[in-house]
Amino acid sequence: MAKKKELWSGRFAKRLRPQVKAFTASLPFDRRLALHDVRASLAHARMLGACGILARRDLAAIERGLAAVRREIERDRFAWSRDDEDVHLNIERRLTALVGDAGKKLHTARSRYDQVATDVRLWLRDEIDSGLDRLAALERALLAQASRHADLVMPGFTHLQVAQPVTFGHHLLAYVEMLERDRERLSECRRRVNRLPLGAAALAGTTFPIDRARVARELGFEAVAENSLDAVSDRDFAIEYCAAASLAMVHLSRLAEELVLWASPRFGFVRLPEDYCTGSSIMPQKRNPDVPELVRGKSSRVVGDLVTLLALMKAQPLAYNKDNQEDKEPLFDAADTLNASLEIMAGLVSGLRPDAKAMRAALAQGHATATDLADYLVRKGVPFRDAHEAVGRAVREAERSGKDLASLPLATLKRFSASIDADVRRVLTPEGSVAARDHFGATSPRQVRQAIARARERLKGRGSRA
Amino acid sequence: MAKKKELWSGRFAKRLRPQVKAFTASLPFDRRLALHDVRASLAHARMLGACGILARRDLAAIERGLAAVRREIERDRFAWSRDDEDVHLNIERRLTALVGDAGKKLHTARSRYDQVATDVRLWLRDEIDSGLDRLAALERALLAQASRHADLVMPGFTHLQVAQPVTFGHHLLAYVEMLERDRERLSECRRRVNRLPLGAAALAGTTFPIDRARVARELGFEAVAENSLDAVSDRDFAIEYCAAASLAMVHLSRLAEELVLWASPRFGFVRLPEDYCTGSSIMPQKRNPDVPELVRGKSSRVVGDLVTLLALMKAQPLAYNKDNQEDKEPLFDAADTLNASLEIMAGLVSGLRPDAKAMRAALAQGHATATDLADYLVRKGVPFRDAHEAVGRAVREAERSGKDLASLPLATLKRFSASIDADVRRVLTPEGSVAARDHFGATSPRQVRQAIARARERLKGRGSRA
Amino acid sequence: MAKKKELWSGRFAKRLRPQVKAFTASLPFDRRLALHDVRASLAHARMLGACGILARRDLAAIERGLAAVRREIERDRFAWSRDDEDVHLNIERRLTALVGDAGKKLHTARSRYDQVATDVRLWLRDEIDSGLDRLAALERALLAQASRHADLVMPGFTHLQVAQPVTFGHHLLAYVEMLERDRERLSECRRRVNRLPLGAAALAGTTFPIDRARVARELGFEAVAENSLDAVSDRDFAIEYCAAASLAMVHLSRLAEELVLWASPRFGFVRLPEDYCTGSSIMPQKRNPDVPELVRGKSSRVVGDLVTLLALMKAQPLAYNKDNQEDKEPLFDAADTLNASLEIMAGLVSGLRPDAKAMRAALAQGHATATDLADYLVRKGVPFRDAHEAVGRAVREAERSGKDLASLPLATLKRFSASIDADVRRVLTPEGSVAARDHFGATSPRQVRQAIARARERLKGRGSRA
Amino acid sequence: MAKKKELWSGRFAKRLRPQVKAFTASLPFDRRLALHDVRASLAHARMLGACGILARRDLAAIERGLAAVRREIERDRFAWSRDDEDVHLNIERRLTALVGDAGKKLHTARSRYDQVATDVRLWLRDEIDSGLDRLAALERALLAQASRHADLVMPGFTHLQVAQPVTFGHHLLAYVEMLERDRERLSECRRRVNRLPLGAAALAGTTFPIDRARVARELGFEAVAENSLDAVSDRDFAIEYCAAASLAMVHLSRLAEELVLWASPRFGFVRLPEDYCTGSSIMPQKRNPDVPELVRGKSSRVVGDLVTLLALMKAQPLAYNKDNQEDKEPLFDAADTLNASLEIMAGLVSGLRPDAKAMRAALAQGHATATDLADYLVRKGVPFRDAHEAVGRAVREAERSGKDLASLPLATLKRFSASIDADVRRVLTPEGSVAARDHFGATSPRQVRQAIARARERLKGRGSRA
Repeated sequence: MAKKKELWSGRFAKRLRPQVKAFTASLPFDRRLALHDVRASLAHARMLGACGILARRDLAAIERGLAAVRREIERDRFAWSRDDEDVHLNIERRLTALVGDAGKKLHTARSRYDQVATDVRLWLRDEIDSGLDRLAALERALLAQASRHADLVMPGFTHLQVAQPVTFGHHLLAYVEMLERDRERLSECRRRVNRLPLGAAALAGTTFPIDRARVARELGFEAVAENSLDAVSDRDFAIEYCAAASLAMVHLSRLAEELVLWASPRFGFVRLPEDYCTGSSIMPQKRNPDVPELVRGKSSRVVGDLVTLLALMKAQPLAYNKDNQEDKEPLFDAADTLNASLEIMAGLVSGLRPDAKAMRAALAQGHATATDLADYLVRKGVPFRDAHEAVGRAVREAERSGKDLASLPLATLKRFSASIDADVRRVLTPEGSVAARDHFGATSPRQVRQAIARARERLKGRGSRA
Repeated sequence: MAKKKELWSGRFAKRLRPQVKAFTASLPFDRRLALHDVRASLAHARMLGACGILARRDLAAIERGLAAVRREIERDRFAWSRDDEDVHLNIERRLTALVGDAGKKLHTARSRYDQVATDVRLWLRDEIDSGLDRLAALERALLAQASRHADLVMPGFTHLQVAQPVTFGHHLLAYVEMLERDRERLSECRRRVNRLPLGAAALAGTTFPIDRARVARELGFEAVAENSLDAVSDRDFAIEYCAAASLAMVHLSRLAEELVLWASPRFGFVRLPEDYCTGSSIMPQKRNPDVPELVRGKSSRVVGDLVTLLALMKAQPLAYNKDNQEDKEPLFDAADTLNASLEIMAGLVSGLRPDAKAMRAALAQGHATATDLADYLVRKGVPFRDAHEAVGRAVREAERSGKDLASLPLATLKRFSASIDADVRRVLTPEGSVAARDHFGATSPRQVRQAIARARERLKGRGSRA
Repeated sequence: MAKKKELWSGRFAKRLRPQVKAFTASLPFDRRLALHDVRASLAHARMLGACGILARRDLAAIERGLAAVRREIERDRFAWSRDDEDVHLNIERRLTALVGDAGKKLHTARSRYDQVATDVRLWLRDEIDSGLDRLAALERALLAQASRHADLVMPGFTHLQVAQPVTFGHHLLAYVEMLERDRERLSECRRRVNRLPLGAAALAGTTFPIDRARVARELGFEAVAENSLDAVSDRDFAIEYCAAASLAMVHLSRLAEELVLWASPRFGFVRLPEDYCTGSSIMPQKRNPDVPELVRGKSSRVVGDLVTLLALMKAQPLAYNKDNQEDKEPLFDAADTLNASLEIMAGLVSGLRPDAKAMRAALAQGHATATDLADYLVRKGVPFRDAHEAVGRAVREAERSGKDLASLPLATLKRFSASIDADVRRVLTPEGSVAARDHFGATSPRQVRQAIARARERLKGRGSRA
Repeated sequence: MAKKKELWSGRFAKRLRPQVKAFTASLPFDRRLALHDVRASLAHARMLGACGILARRDLAAIERGLAAVRREIERDRFAWSRDDEDVHLNIERRLTALVGDAGKKLHTARSRYDQVATDVRLWLRDEIDSGLDRLAALERALLAQASRHADLVMPGFTHLQVAQPVTFGHHLLAYVEMLERDRERLSECRRRVNRLPLGAAALAGTTFPIDRARVARELGFEAVAENSLDAVSDRDFAIEYCAAASLAMVHLSRLAEELVLWASPRFGFVRLPEDYCTGSSIMPQKRNPDVPELVRGKSSRVVGDLVTLLALMKAQPLAYNKDNQEDKEPLFDAADTLNASLEIMAGLVSGLRPDAKAMRAALAQGHATATDLADYLVRKGVPFRDAHEAVGRAVREAERSGKDLASLPLATLKRFSASIDADVRRVLTPEGSVAARDHFGATSPRQVRQAIARARERLKGRGSRA
């Protein structure tokens, strides 16, 4: 039941209906911004003081009061009241209770529109930093495995058919590339998150002679939002973050898909660490790859969050509309999901144990070195398209006789091209195949080691926050 | 820290890592299914008893235990433990603590896969029933307003340009049609929700001679799922529900958009009830239509939920994969959002007060009866395309002279067509215009009243559950 | 360059800029509706005639003219002009060129808003009928395979880990269930598609005494849209169709995923018909499952189409806004994608050849009958939870010794439960396992045959349109 | 009917079924990449020549042949054949027809996987450059209007309620900020697009000693993709582009929404150029803002394209799968939609004519200077929260007496706060209000002019490509 008067209620004859209060209140989710709100309020108050808008003694009272509020929040002793709608009014009300009239002056020269935009940006900046660290940690876990298994040969797949031999290290490095792009995108997104909206007030700026650059400096913002209407209504930063997070989750879901495949007895390429697996309530033998499955599933929710935000902002006239309050839950969910998934995947990847024998067995099915044979013919002067055709026919023969191409006798191979000689043998082995792919970006162990070194160089000095 | 042994842990040498337990646990959200879980377990146990799979005394113990569990849940005294992963294992563990070995027999002939599918369907059936009631309540609120204002003339818009006069009642009835389709869709969806998966066990059925039809009867399911692999992995019902909910929310968002427009001083067509509006922390004069804005915004999150579920299920091999655990939060969110939005909109609509004066003033801008003039000419024998052309030129003249078409002198009108006579006056009034549109589905007050009667007939006996 | 005058240009001083004409023209995609447009115009004209709004000789001229137009369209001789914006104005202009003033009368009592809504509904009704037929055809293809392989045992998977033995027939029937729900949804959607908007005119109905029921009868609509504002602005039918199509595509994508897995040499469970596979431009040995991969990919575009339509309609005020023109391309794309995918999958499924040997080999890895052993113990009086624990420990021993549970010696098994006797052998075989799951919806060959019979009964008399 | 043999068909006994060929062919859409394909093939061939993999005379033949192919394409004389599946095989086949065996050597050391990835990146780079130019052009159009109307006062809205006076120039600058962020994002996306995949071959690199850096230089790529598996399967660049395009379209949809509102007679704030408007086929008076409505609608389709691509890539195992072929149509659609929308909006914005009188009239409704009055009281020593309360009560009185706050007599105002004096008048005028908001980012004409100058500086030297 609403008992206290709303802080904005001067013009209203009727009290807000309790059911409407429950529908419109954001406190259940924006409480999460409490410490960022205090921090931004402090910077705002100090600027008001420095600009002569707030008397020295009022500033002192506010500083004292906000410090008390912060302690209450940190110790989980703050008495949140749904009656006060949101985190901002809760804190302002408590401040005024603690320090009296000075508290009523804090909201000078600002509105909740620029205030919440500031809080969310501060919060998101922290989440991005955490995400950048976790991306780096996952990259390092992949690099450690890649380094350990730079020579380990496995079948590379396209269309889930055996394509060509690759090294396990090379395969893992593909994910390092994806995550590296994610780090780039998040870093660039961070720059756009890190602009100060405060000072835009309701939408037009304020009549007080404020110093926005001072607030930006104190809060670590790189720039001040250039247009007040845009500053209060812009949610680009949330959408861009969710887009970057969606893409990162798509990468994790691809890795997760492969782990699920590889952990299946049909592949058996890796063994997942047992403390990352769960059993079944009915089937006693089960050892399920729940973690990658959940990560794969969770990628969908971040895509959903992104869609929500895009649909939310579409066709909104300027400036702030209440719709924008719906930005927080999807944004929070996207950040939580991404950061939790990155962390758990780093642990999982570190514990992977590849099974060289299973990989070797799989290489024997699928004529993995057929391209090598075609290339071999090209080097003997056969045009590639004709070489391809000849090897294709040899594969047909191998299939017919139930063998892998690599194990066909030389005499049989020669039936498909007179250019085939005994030196073809090395070309048909997986080791020969990967060793021969020895240029920038290719799968030879030598190239894999160089790629690892480059990737480690890129990561240097980054992510040490983790 | 995980202390208890997992109920499925026989084959595991290592305990689940606490961080992994936190990542995979569904208890934080599936607790919501607790009472449905108890209900389904009871029906399952009774069937096991009736089929001779469970001894009479074991059944009695389980019934007693589950009754105790239900009371604990209802009184919020159940000691939930994240350690037990999910709602099912929590309840099974508690049951066994209460009644001993009999509790260990409850999971005979079922798995958590068919169990959770059953729980969610029971839960969703209740949510749909609640949604159907709320749809009916909102329709009734619209019909009451439509009935009160069946004669009230306002400008109808296309492209947000004045198009033709309509009655306010007729305009509101458009939403009744949309909501009626939503009721149809939800009812049909309910039939597909209301099929029993229990008995599918893990994926293949069970070796015990169970009687699924008995369980279906006891739980009020209309049918038994025909294929066990499908029964445990199917999430169609969740997707179909979210699709129906998305569409319903799109309807609410359209109504919300109009309320926001109409409540703007630029339109001033309606006054929202004051206890549904909020003020501003900075601008003392504000009286904001937060409720329709939030509803408009919330439509986006249901679309996001739908996308999440579609992306979640895409390309999953049979049968159950852990990804499916991610179905609950979006589904819960969609149902909560839809049902809360329907309820608040019913209240808001009931409190609307249209402003006939503002509507009338708006009718004087935009040449709203131009089509009536063209139709008039057609009735005098002018081909429609030529009539349209002539009236178009008359409008140009009206614009040039800063007047509305309806206020042009007869002499001026005659310049555009010799067929125009003094009897054109009635045709050019808004009242004449709406009265003349008097066929099935059109805007005349007479038709509006008939449409209201038909709509009330459709609603008869429905939604009384609210 | 725009040369002809626009048919609506009476009030305009300036001509539409050619660049704008190109941007706004819908002819490039709505031409597809041409024959439906002619058909609806004919019905409209005949109704105008029957109601005395159109003179007999005018009607005769219009009928003659539209017949000529139809022939031109069918023979691809119609001279489409982008200058005339859309399919409607193209046809009206041509009609007037053919029959003179009578052509200018056709647009009496209608607008392009209700006209295009009518055309699209007629078109979509045809597409749905085609979809229903193709769903039935794919179901029949699955049933034929299921019938052939009702006894063929393969490992059922959950989490892509071996779970329990199932029959190949039972597995395929899971998809029949999904498709059957798709048929239900499409049929119900069809009823909502099949309502006549014509007569709503611009948004308010018309001043002419039209007979909408007559038009509905002639065009085969089941009902007349009840509210004119809703009739012209409603796109529910398109959204509902795309939602149903998305779900159907999700089902196809799941089947496609399994076919890709099964066709991989790692599984080898099925051989795809060679004329449904393609090779590689570089790897001579490749035989790629392009068709299921494309179907899996195409499911995404239908989800995208659905999102487009939901976002499109969200928050649009009544009645028609030009945004609605963007409904066609996603709707066309969704229908084309669904219907093409259904057709190709029916062919592909018919050509599948399962590999019993590979399935059998896979059954030997993963302790597929562990649940059967637990159930066996339950039947001997062990509480299920204790039986599960005992079998779990036995699986651990099997893993340690590199064997499958089913091949552990009896003596070893007895170490985990004294209740295990020689009669356990049958329980541990795949055949025993599937035969024992013999209740409604379960995997035993007997149940599979009954399920096939029921499914065939449901399909009887349906889909013969294909 | 398929008549020619597929270029990859050596191993196949059966021909591809025509229906399957139609389903899998990408030629209908990838033809669009033809010139980029030729360009990339030339660079590839020259590198093969430089590295000694291709004989000088073969290179010469290929160069000659590809030049001929390019001419045929440019003159629309190339005989495309659906039989050859895609743009690549069409061109290779034609080349071989023109120059014989040399043509069969072109595909040495590459696959269609790295080839198409290269083509699409080249194409997208061009589209991004075009988008950057069009963004700049639209910004310039907005800046020109903002500059012309830097002093024009209009009501600023929040919640579509009158909030505070702003200048029209300031309002338009909000969009300049949004578009400037779009330019940043697209530029950063371009860097990630502009990496060379060629040389990855099928997935593992090639056995030939290729020089990828040379190819990158010739084609203007900034970097070489570091990992071959990633290079062929990565579609991040497409997703990132669609995300950036979605956000840009959301901005355009917001501007479009405002133009639709402003052009409505209810607002009347702007007059759209008549050659950007269309009429109605039925309502002779209509002058519809089709262009902004379509832009608003089209924003939805780019969101749909983005969703398609995210769902497409989710959970794909490495490396290339056929699903990826579905990347092109959504990507093409997104780029076409964005670039066309940007161009048409630049023209539309340039032609806008604001209506100062309508804006002024709207300012008189809504108590737009209430915040100014509260600030005034704060400057007189009243705590902000008390000032807000006092003004709120004054607004209530104004509403009661049917007046705007600004027109209340001084005596009445003083009833709400003794601190109000005659100097309050200037504060209550719109001009006084905007002039007083005179800090960085605020709405005063002085600030607007400075912001315009800064924006022009940022644009300097950019977008001159347009």
